[in-house]
Amino acid sequence: MDLNLTPSPKAQELLTKLKGFMDQHIYPNEKAYAEQVHNAENRFAVMPLMDELKEKAKAEGLWNLFVPEEYGQYSDIGGLSFLDYAPLCEEMGRVIWSPEVFNCNAPDTGNMEVFMKYATDAQREKWLTPLLNGDIRSSYAMTEPQVASSDATNIELLIEKDGDEWVLNGRKWFITGAMNERTKIFIVMGKSDPDNPSRHKQQTQVLVPQGTPGLKIIRPLTTLGYDDAPIGHAELVFENVRVPMENVLLGEGRGFEIAQGRLAPGRMHHCMRLIGTAQRSLELACQRVTQRSTFGRPLAKHQSIREEISRSFSEIEMARLLVLKTCKLIDDQGPLQTTDMIAATKTTVPLLVQNVIDRCMQMHGAGGLTEDYMMAEGFNYARWCRQADGPDQVHQMALGKQVIGRFSGQ
Amino acid sequence: MDLNLTPSPKAQELLTKLKGFMDQHIYPNEKAYAEQVHNAENRFAVMPLMDELKEKAKAEGLWNLFVPEEYGQYSDIGGLSFLDYAPLCEEMGRVIWSPEVFNCNAPDTGNMEVFMKYATDAQREKWLTPLLNGDIRSSYAMTEPQVASSDATNIELLIEKDGDEWVLNGRKWFITGAMNERTKIFIVMGKSDPDNPSRHKQQTQVLVPQGTPGLKIIRPLTTLGYDDAPIGHAELVFENVRVPMENVLLGEGRGFEIAQGRLAPGRMHHCMRLIGTAQRSLELACQRVTQRSTFGRPLAKHQSIREEISRSFSEIEMARLLVLKTCKLIDDQGPLQTTDMIAATKTTVPLLVQNVIDRCMQMHGAGGLTEDYMMAEGFNYARWCRQADGPDQVHQMALGKQVIGRFSGQ
Amino acid sequence: MDLNLTPSPKAQELLTKLKGFMDQHIYPNEKAYAEQVHNAENRFAVMPLMDELKEKAKAEGLWNLFVPEEYGQYSDIGGLSFLDYAPLCEEMGRVIWSPEVFNCNAPDTGNMEVFMKYATDAQREKWLTPLLNGDIRSSYAMTEPQVASSDATNIELLIEKDGDEWVLNGRKWFITGAMNERTKIFIVMGKSDPDNPSRHKQQTQVLVPQGTPGLKIIRPLTTLGYDDAPIGHAELVFENVRVPMENVLLGEGRGFEIAQGRLAPGRMHHCMRLIGTAQRSLELACQRVTQRSTFGRPLAKHQSIREEISRSFSEIEMARLLVLKTCKLIDDQGPLQTTDMIAATKTTVPLLVQNVIDRCMQMHGAGGLTEDYMMAEGFNYARWCRQADGPDQVHQMALGKQVIGRFSGQ
Amino acid sequence: MDLNLTPSPKAQELLTKLKGFMDQHIYPNEKAYAEQVHNAENRFAVMPLMDELKEKAKAEGLWNLFVPEEYGQYSDIGGLSFLDYAPLCEEMGRVIWSPEVFNCNAPDTGNMEVFMKYATDAQREKWLTPLLNGDIRSSYAMTEPQVASSDATNIELLIEKDGDEWVLNGRKWFITGAMNERTKIFIVMGKSDPDNPSRHKQQTQVLVPQGTPGLKIIRPLTTLGYDDAPIGHAELVFENVRVPMENVLLGEGRGFEIAQGRLAPGRMHHCMRLIGTAQRSLELACQRVTQRSTFGRPLAKHQSIREEISRSFSEIEMARLLVLKTCKLIDDQGPLQTTDMIAATKTTVPLLVQNVIDRCMQMHGAGGLTEDYMMAEGFNYARWCRQADGPDQVHQMALGKQVIGRFSGQ
Repeated sequence: MDLNLTPSPKAQELLTKLKGFMDQHIYPNEKAYAEQVHNAENRFAVMPLMDELKEKAKAEGLWNLFVPEEYGQYSDIGGLSFLDYAPLCEEMGRVIWSPEVFNCNAPDTGNMEVFMKYATDAQREKWLTPLLNGDIRSSYAMTEPQVASSDATNIELLIEKDGDEWVLNGRKWFITGAMNERTKIFIVMGKSDPDNPSRHKQQTQVLVPQGTPGLKIIRPLTTLGYDDAPIGHAELVFENVRVPMENVLLGEGRGFEIAQGRLAPGRMHHCMRLIGTAQRSLELACQRVTQRSTFGRPLAKHQSIREEISRSFSEIEMARLLVLKTCKLIDDQGPLQTTDMIAATKTTVPLLVQNVIDRCMQMHGAGGLTEDYMMAEGFNYARWCRQADGPDQVHQMALGKQVIGRFSGQ
Repeated sequence: MDLNLTPSPKAQELLTKLKGFMDQHIYPNEKAYAEQVHNAENRFAVMPLMDELKEKAKAEGLWNLFVPEEYGQYSDIGGLSFLDYAPLCEEMGRVIWSPEVFNCNAPDTGNMEVFMKYATDAQREKWLTPLLNGDIRSSYAMTEPQVASSDATNIELLIEKDGDEWVLNGRKWFITGAMNERTKIFIVMGKSDPDNPSRHKQQTQVLVPQGTPGLKIIRPLTTLGYDDAPIGHAELVFENVRVPMENVLLGEGRGFEIAQGRLAPGRMHHCMRLIGTAQRSLELACQRVTQRSTFGRPLAKHQSIREEISRSFSEIEMARLLVLKTCKLIDDQGPLQTTDMIAATKTTVPLLVQNVIDRCMQMHGAGGLTEDYMMAEGFNYARWCRQADGPDQVHQMALGKQVIGRFSGQ
Repeated sequence: MDLNLTPSPKAQELLTKLKGFMDQHIYPNEKAYAEQVHNAENRFAVMPLMDELKEKAKAEGLWNLFVPEEYGQYSDIGGLSFLDYAPLCEEMGRVIWSPEVFNCNAPDTGNMEVFMKYATDAQREKWLTPLLNGDIRSSYAMTEPQVASSDATNIELLIEKDGDEWVLNGRKWFITGAMNERTKIFIVMGKSDPDNPSRHKQQTQVLVPQGTPGLKIIRPLTTLGYDDAPIGHAELVFENVRVPMENVLLGEGRGFEIAQGRLAPGRMHHCMRLIGTAQRSLELACQRVTQRSTFGRPLAKHQSIREEISRSFSEIEMARLLVLKTCKLIDDQGPLQTTDMIAATKTTVPLLVQNVIDRCMQMHGAGGLTEDYMMAEGFNYARWCRQADGPDQVHQMALGKQVIGRFSGQ
Repeated sequence: MDLNLTPSPKAQELLTKLKGFMDQHIYPNEKAYAEQVHNAENRFAVMPLMDELKEKAKAEGLWNLFVPEEYGQYSDIGGLSFLDYAPLCEEMGRVIWSPEVFNCNAPDTGNMEVFMKYATDAQREKWLTPLLNGDIRSSYAMTEPQVASSDATNIELLIEKDGDEWVLNGRKWFITGAMNERTKIFIVMGKSDPDNPSRHKQQTQVLVPQGTPGLKIIRPLTTLGYDDAPIGHAELVFENVRVPMENVLLGEGRGFEIAQGRLAPGRMHHCMRLIGTAQRSLELACQRVTQRSTFGRPLAKHQSIREEISRSFSEIEMARLLVLKTCKLIDDQGPLQTTDMIAATKTTVPLLVQNVIDRCMQMHGAGGLTEDYMMAEGFNYARWCRQADGPDQVHQMALGKQVIGRFSGQ
């Protein structure tokens, strides 16, 4: 039994450097970045500040930190374990748009991993290389409006062979990044063999370049009023979209397998970031309550405020430890042996963080709900993560079944 | 003891008519209205659809339903008690922008009441008449960014006499309606006599017409990403804003008294509407769960779904009853004798509704958080009501003190 | 639509009298009664104090208040509607053992109703008359340890005909009152026709006098450490228990029908009482927090205490209103048309009360959990009511299904 | 930064042995032990089974596992760190009375630590040696009914010097173990110098042997109906209780210092055990739901059951990790540098465990609340731990203050 949750010296060093970068370049630019987005003619354009900051991060070696250990060749720093990446990812979660500065934002990280694991050399050269450089962006098109997409076997977008081409027809939504002006490639999951007796062999994933005829962006979607520009989430329609045979990923009928491999890290990354989002909200609340008085007493001296700060502190500690233990287990035994703890993390952390931030916003008075703080956007982030990759309830169903089996012997 | 919560025949008749109007004119226009706002060049303009619907509502006698019984002369239908207005207001809460159709939206209803109760004939003629006609709109400027405005005695905007004019200097925020193109008048609360030994006589309220030099709208504010256009909430600056002496409301040093009288109905109206917001969310959830299946079973048959529907139904029932009882008490004994129940309602209903909607959104999968349903916006409405007129905690402090006193004899 | 929740003048008068009785005779005897039970040689004997108080209550006309309107002939005061009984029952709920003083305790009230509704004249003479006089007590034997008894069709105790006798074999538990020395009659639900194609016609209820050979009391059961003496809950075994044919209630195969009719009022009575239990806990907490200081400040001035008092007050208000509305509907349309609101009440009030009492106990420090206050026992009462007549979840399932159907049209 | 939460090989070996002992000797005796207590003439006598099991545990080297590393000389196994003790203590928490089998039960463990740290050689020989052997038992008398004892400076029991004796006068309650027939020594905290300007130097602790004239046991106390026999919690009176000068512990005026040192480990031990209590409840629930069906479906397949099992699993994981991290920090930097995490643990784990067990009981139907399972007693254990060493709120106040200070720089 090994429960050593200490990050490696390399990770600790990177964390120190990253914190310095946040202090020097990110926090001081929060307002400016928000203004660039606010004033942008195209909300889904790349903001000039983002490009400046990316250059700085790259120069300091804070780049592609997400690259996993086994694919260390793709990163100058050589790849990190889950356990090592967690505190770095948490740090980035303190400013919601900052992961992109370090080329560590969803969905590109997950897509790059897909390319590392499943792509051909040609596919990697064409798409992975510019993604690793931060020159282009990518989308992962899985969720569909008509079906409960959390059960990947429900996916209905049709992928048919016609001559030496794949033909795609269907509708997708919540396709993160689709509208961004630098997004050049879509990884699309669809059903290529609906009659295959194995429900897990009916799916295929193909690569669809931006601009392919028939691929239409219908609209940006909002969650709780946020369009999450300039990344955003879109609804897409595929009408007779044609791509060549070689655009298949891994192989026909192997789409489900890719989805399984891709999603676990993504869930963990969200949770890592959310720890940072909650932690920063707590810190803002601590500052706020020392600055504001009601009825002749600083908020910081009200018993109820202290109780809520205390509760939030404790909950964040627990959530962070849950993330770390799950990371350690993934590192040691792989994600497929860790589905229980991944599900526990995914169904616990976002809800917990939502509640922590809700309290922290409340301590800020009306201003706490506005764009003057990162909390409201963080609240939205936590809230939609309870739906990302399927509603929590679906994962709880699987975890509950597993736990019952373990302790009942059935 | 009288706890007859039955609405009068007049109110029941109006409710039937109102429901018919909602069915015929409001629900079918939800999408169209959203699109008009979305595509508007000026998000704070009046949408053409709104004007059309207002005309229809006026024609059907569904107009100024909010007018209280004692000011029945101002309404064609003759005024309604709180208890009679509650189910009507609930009905309007089912579509967040619909109250304006019936000239029943915040903050105009509260402002009109202020004019009815406290204004001179001249003031009434100038402002109340067009407000009752729905020709202009108004704002109530109380909350300030620098102080905990829930304690009205903290207000800092300075109102000084200079010759025969009042001179205003200060900053306000969360001023609902300020940016709307039809907003013509601001009721502004400020401090005119900071050294008055009575903390409740230091405040004065004056009328500031839109366009008065020195009154600047700084920015729209968002809550959870919503700008609530075309009504919205603004940050304002008053720089040497001058208005004539006769623009004082009720009298110098009587601002606190006006605030007390104005705020109770406003809180109740929000709660009435939120019942409708929650009820509609529940109905949407009921429809959704019969249409969607996961893992081979309609959501409607999942035990957890049924438990959450059941819980939501029960909570809405309780919240509605709490609103009705409080209304009944206000009708019978006035708001000043009902501060306990008003506080109980204000601190209970928004949070309860927030939780109900959170569950209903979750049952909708990712789409539940988007603009495709009214739920996300309703969630935002419930959330900010926990801050409106001061954070719930401030009201709980007062209520707790009162209850402790009642049962401890201290 | 009629939502007049005002109790009748008769009920209001009774309430005044009952409150006076509580003040004069019940509260001053709480300690003495607890000591009599504590020191009793047989914890399930009748305590002398109980008999004294029963005589006093009878003399004051505070007797058999539970008798429903339609059976008014059985009560000197002529029967009360649900709505009228609710505040009286709430009042009794303030002292957990006090309902028996007024001959209004479970399970006798429910059993007496069964006799009123379903018994023959001979059965009524033999059992109902002494029950109404408070001379004997009774039990209702339904729940079984081996099956989920919330679904009454699961009941397994066998009732077979043998000549002119019924023969009972099976096991029951949570049979309230079974051990009390005055309990003389058991109403036993069992399966007489397991092969009947209608699952609701397989059951029969028969009367089994205490002392019938083969009826064995196995043990008292505790919930959260309470044996609820001298009433208590027992586990029973029926081994070839024989009773004559005429001991059948209503008729062979009609056991399910009786159970349906009996249980709704019982659920409502528990909820009515629990409102009183919670209300008294809140009042105790209010007194406590004015008497105790921590860190130089009376608890009553701590913001968190005020928030929790405030929350508890509001929740009790809502729960009480929910009970009253459900009562009103039962009065107007009968329990079978009110299953939705009965389920809403049954699944909401006990949990809410449990939480209120939990807070109130916490405000009392360690002493709050002891026998020095009625709170801990009240907590236990609320807790087991979440299981009484089946776990809340079963009722939520039914209610959820009903609500989904109502709003989805399915 | 070191967050290695892996127990040492020695601890892992002990855990394996302990689990074997539980399987072989404890679980099979749960019913028998409960019956011995139930049938005992004196509920506070030592049960024969306990003595048998203690001998077996001693023989297997599972004895005095609680002894901390720095006092390793007092234990055959040489002392364990907090981190190493945690999983062992958790294991014992699965059966509430089992810690005594291993001489690891409260309050003796804490008292023994007090003797190790603060006693003279003579005191140690007289009391520590037989305690370590399990021959006698001890009590720690701190809490008083009249004052909020969570603030130790409130303690009022008077300790006065008279000649060469200390004279004690006052009242204590919740004195665990006081009534047990083997309890021979009381460590009593009182006020010896009420006028000392330093509030932390007014207290002294003295040793009072059982049987000293004037020391009266007033009554056993229950929490939620449990008397926790044969250990139990008592109310005591000290009336002119006289002990010789040498019975002082550490020195006059140093009582507060001892209390500080004693309480942190005690809090952690409770939390460690509660993890085991919760874990066992979860396991029981998992078994139950596979054995019981409602409405034609095993409980294990109901979505709501799976969600609650899932939630409980996740919460226990988090709570366990919080305990372990706090242990690690105490080991590394001492309890006085770890007050934040100790408070976080103490205010989080008992409440969380209470909620987990509440759910698990509910899944068991009515039986879940009875003595047929360990859950109800475990629920009581978790509940009173929220009051032990002061209500959670007091610790949250301190932690909240500390966290606010840390992040606000104030």
